Order: sequence, then structure tokens, then C-alpha cells
Amino acid sequence: MEIGIVGYGNLGKACERLLQNNRNKRLKCIFSRRKGIVSEFNTPIYGMDDLDGFVGKLDALCLLTGSQSDLIPLAKKVLGKFNTIDSFDTHAKMREYFSFADEAAKRGGTLSLIGIGWDPGLFSLMRGLNNAVLPLGYDATFWGRGVSQGHSEAIRKLDGVLDAKEYTFPISGAEERIKKGEKLTEREMHGRECFVVVKDGADKDKIEKEIKTMPNYFLPYDTTVHFIDKAEFDKNHSEMPHGGKVLRVGNTSGYAQNMEFSLKLNSNPYFTASVIVAYLTALNNMYSAGERGARTILDVAISALYNGDVLKFV
Amino acid sequence: MEIGIVGYGNLGKACERLLQNNRNKRLKCIFSRRKGIVSEFNTPIYGMDDLDGFVGKLDALCLLTGSQSDLIPLAKKVLGKFNTIDSFDTHAKMREYFSFADEAAKRGGTLSLIGIGWDPGLFSLMRGLNNAVLPLGYDATFWGRGVSQGHSEAIRKLDGVLDAKEYTFPISGAEERIKKGEKLTEREMHGRECFVVVKDGADKDKIEKEIKTMPNYFLPYDTTVHFIDKAEFDKNHSEMPHGGKVLRVGNTSGYAQNMEFSLKLNSNPYFTASVIVAYLTALNNMYSAGERGARTILDVAISALYNGDVLKFV
Repeated sequence: MEIGIVGYGNLGKACERLLQNNRNKRLKCIFSRRKGIVSEFNTPIYGMDDLDGFVGKLDALCLLTGSQSDLIPLAKKVLGKFNTIDSFDTHAKMREYFSFADEAAKRGGTLSLIGIGWDPGLFSLMRGLNNAVLPLGYDATFWGRGVSQGHSEAIRKLDGVLDAKEYTFPISGAEERIKKGEKLTEREMHGRECFVVVKDGADKDKIEKEIKTMPNYFLPYDTTVHFIDKAEFDKNHSEMPHGGKVLRVGNTSGYAQNMEFSLKLNSNPYFTASVIVAYLTALNNMYSAGERGARTILDVAISALYNGDVLKFV
Repeated sequence: MEIGIVGYGNLGKACERLLQNNRNKRLKCIFSRRKGIVSEFNTPIYGMDDLDGFVGKLDALCLLTGSQSDLIPLAKKVLGKFNTIDSFDTHAKMREYFSFADEAAKRGGTLSLIGIGWDPGLFSLMRGLNNAVLPLGYDATFWGRGVSQGHSEAIRKLDGVLDAKEYTFPISGAEERIKKGEKLTEREMHGRECFVVVKDGADKDKIEKEIKTMPNYFLPYDTTVHFIDKAEFDKNHSEMPHGGKVLRVGNTSGYAQNMEFSLKLNSNPYFTASVIVAYLTALNNMYSAGERGARTILDVAISALYNGDVLKFV
């Protein structure tokens, strides 16, 4: 497969690295809005205006723009022209995005896999599996302990902030309470801890208050804010670990039955990139089998992730 | 869907119960070798010779014979005549069974889902997913703590034994050692604990020795044998709990990445039956979409387990 990547942030860079030693997939080009950048492995980097010149020349285009708000305009530009894969991650807008993507891809005779990552992504797959196998029961999803990029960005945008990382973590004991059948609020399930570097002379009390009262992001949670210096930040907060788990607390004819899927990731972008690289094989296999339109991770059989024999896993 | 069940043991009874309140699936009949039995919910019970009379009258036949050794002869009788689902569980013979099933179903223009349960089954699905997403790494599967029906049966066949239950359990600390990269033997991963009721005057020392030295079943493990009376057995060992977990200890570009899927089941037969009932929907959907031949759980997209919308899980 000849692959193109759009976007050269954390996810794009991780994809580039993972595709270096792949037997069946070759990274042919990267597209970026930024001018004059050089890729780590000397993959040719083109501007966004060059995309149209590659129509018909790539087996798949990975849409890995840094900000999810960039993804919709990009999708409008390329869906239907290329087979695409993305990790669109706004749960609330997934339905709307799916409708658009399905229509655009069908019109252009292409195939688009959307929401391919771990949540949305593998966690979505597990919720679907769990609910089919145990229709009586309830779901719970825990995230962390790990870095939320969206929450970190929200802090970095505040006046006086130089850098910030936000860690989301499950509240101790919450999982056990849910397994006993309690219904918990968001505040009872997750906490948020922030490490913030500020400019000289910045008003720390004001920044802390701005963080803790930020609607949606921090207000519904118990939030702790630590102000640290740049040296400590670079030493202890440069990586992007994450993880989480999807639970199904179910019941069949009176018997309690629990299913659980969990991830412990030392690098969120590398893991997400690894999911995308795996599903590129499925994109190719499903396109070759005649599938057109948009598909989510629930539409992809695990055997489509392979070209060879899968009976060894049974 | 109109469903038939072959076999009226633990799994058949659990399936019958789960199908009682199903909106889309109706249990029409049960086939059993045993004469004169009555079903718990008054489902009509027929003999094995009556199967041929139902060709063309059932949407699916669930092959739930008590012993796996009965499954192959049954499959030879019905595959290609009915769409079937089974939980064939002999890993070592899966490839051979698949070849036979694929040919028989294709010849008859039917569809057969094989190895549908939790291991083989959901654990197979997870091993396939895990290996695709994290191609660098290693797998480990733990079973228990739970009742192994095969091992319990092996003890019950010994002279002087009235009843027996065997519990398989993961050795404490083994999971942590595997996550650190150690390779463990079977004896280091699992232990076996047996509860045995013997006849009056039976030679307990001899029975204990026979159990502990049984090749394949107990010899490769540290095995504990408890002799208990019938009253204690009935009180504490009448249920069939089980569970286990599939681990993938992986690595992407130097970052450790772990995936884990685990089950905690208060009833093994009810959970397995629940998996089968869920996959009946997929059998119907895939057959309607024109699929013919044999398929394993890896060939079934999660969306095929539903008739309606699955975007809610994304």
C-alpha cells in the first residue's frame, strides 16, 4: 500500500515512524500546512494545495491533523477523492460526521474509516461487543491516569500560562462502587490534576481560579493545580502516557457477568498511530472487496486486519 | 429468527432460558439423543432422527452437544443443511474442523459460525485484535479462578469417585512476572484445585495419586486434592463460575503498551449461551448478505451483531 499522511503533529510523526519498517505499507508523502518543515525520516512534505495532484496515486490517506476542528474542513476537501482513515474524536458530532462522510465517499466511489483510535475506537468496539453479549447491564468507561491533550490545551490558552499538562485519573474506589451497582456522577468517577508553568509575575491565584471554574473542562470535577518551573516540567511531564478501561456490568438470568477491556499506554500518540496502521490493512481489504462509503470500527471484522491466516488466534 | 437447539445439557438449557424473552428470536425446537425428557419451558423435544424433517424450516441450528466429541459427528450430519452456530472448543483441531465446515457449508449453500464462546471465542477475537494493533509483543492467557468441565469429568471417570469439581486458577504473581517480560511454564502460570466425593471405603490415597499423575490434565501442574462429603459438595460446589484474561504486552517504538481483556463470570454456561445468542443475529445478517461457508468469530464485524444503529457505541 502507498500511504499519505495529512498533518505532522504528534500523531503524524508517530505514524511516520511506525511505517518505516512495515512490510506491506510504504509512506510516500506527508501534507502539512506549515511551510519549510523537514520530516524525521526524510519523507517528502507537500503543502495542502498539492493534495489534488495525488488523487489516484495513493491507496490511503491518513487524516491526522493536530486539531480536530481542522478535520472537518480537511474531510470536505478529500473524502470521495481518496480512501481515508481518521481518528475523529468528538463523540457528540460523530453521527453528523458519519452522514457527511458516507455520502461523500459513496459519491466518489471511495471508502473512509472514521473514528479509528482507542476512544473513539477500540473502546467503541468493546462497548458494542459488550452490549450485544450482555444486553442486560450497564457500561462504565474510565480514563487515565493520563494526559488529556484537550484539557492541557485549554490551560495553555489562558493569559500568563507558558505550558501545561493535565492528567485525568479515575477516583479511587469508583470502579468498585460501579460494580456494586451504584450510579456515579462525573465528579465521583474522575479527578483532574494540572501542572502549569507560568510567565514571570503572572497572577497564580487568578490562573488557578480560571482553570477550576472553566465550564465543561474543569468545573464538573475536583481539580488540583500545581505551579512548577520549566525545568521540572520538562523533566517530569514531557511524555504522553494514557489508558483507561471499558466495563460492562451485566447479568444473564440472575448470574452476574462482568466484561472488562483495559489499556495501559506509555505513549498515547504511538498507540493511536499503531491502531491506525493496523486498520489501514482493513481499509485496503474492504475497498478491494467492493465496500464504498463510510465505516466505523464496529463495521470492521478483525480478520480484515490481516492478509493471511487468522485461525492461529482461534 | 426461528431457532433449533441440538443438545440439552448445561449449555442447551441456558440457551433455552435466554431465548425465552428475546424479541427477534424464537426457540422452535430442541433435539436430543436422550428419550422421554421434558424441557424446562415446554419447548418440543425431538430425537436426532427428526433433524432432517426440519431442513428449510429453521433459520439457525445451535449445536450444543454436551461433549465436544459428539460435535464432529453431528456437524457431519447437519452442516450444509442448516445454518449453524457452535462453540467447538478443541483448539488443536480447529483448523481441521474449519476446513471440513467451510467445504460442507459451501456445498450446501449455508453459513456456519464455528468456535463461538469465550475461549475459543471472545478471547480469540481479542488475540487477533491485540496482535494486529501491537505486532511487536507477546500474548498471555490466564484462566480462572473457575471450574474446568473437562478436568472435572476426567476425575469423575476414576474408580471410586462419585462426584468432582476442578478449579483452575492463575498463580499469584504470574501476571506481574509476564508483564515484566519473563517466560513462564504452565506450572508457573496456573494451579489446579480439586474437590472430590468418593464412595464409602474408596482408597483416597490411590485416587489422589491417580489425579496428580494424570498426563496432560494434572501432571504438568501443582494440584491440590480435597476429599469432601456430598453435603459440602452440593452446598459449595454446585455452581460453574469461571473467567480469565487475555493480555498483550506490546511495544511501539520503545514505548511499552499493554492491552487486557478480562471476564469474571458467575456462570460459565449462561455466559457462553449469551455469546451464542448474540452471534445468532450475525449468522442471520451475514447469511442474508450472501455469505456462505464457515466463519470464525474473527470474521464477524461487531455491527453484524445488531439489526439497528450502532453509532451510539462510537
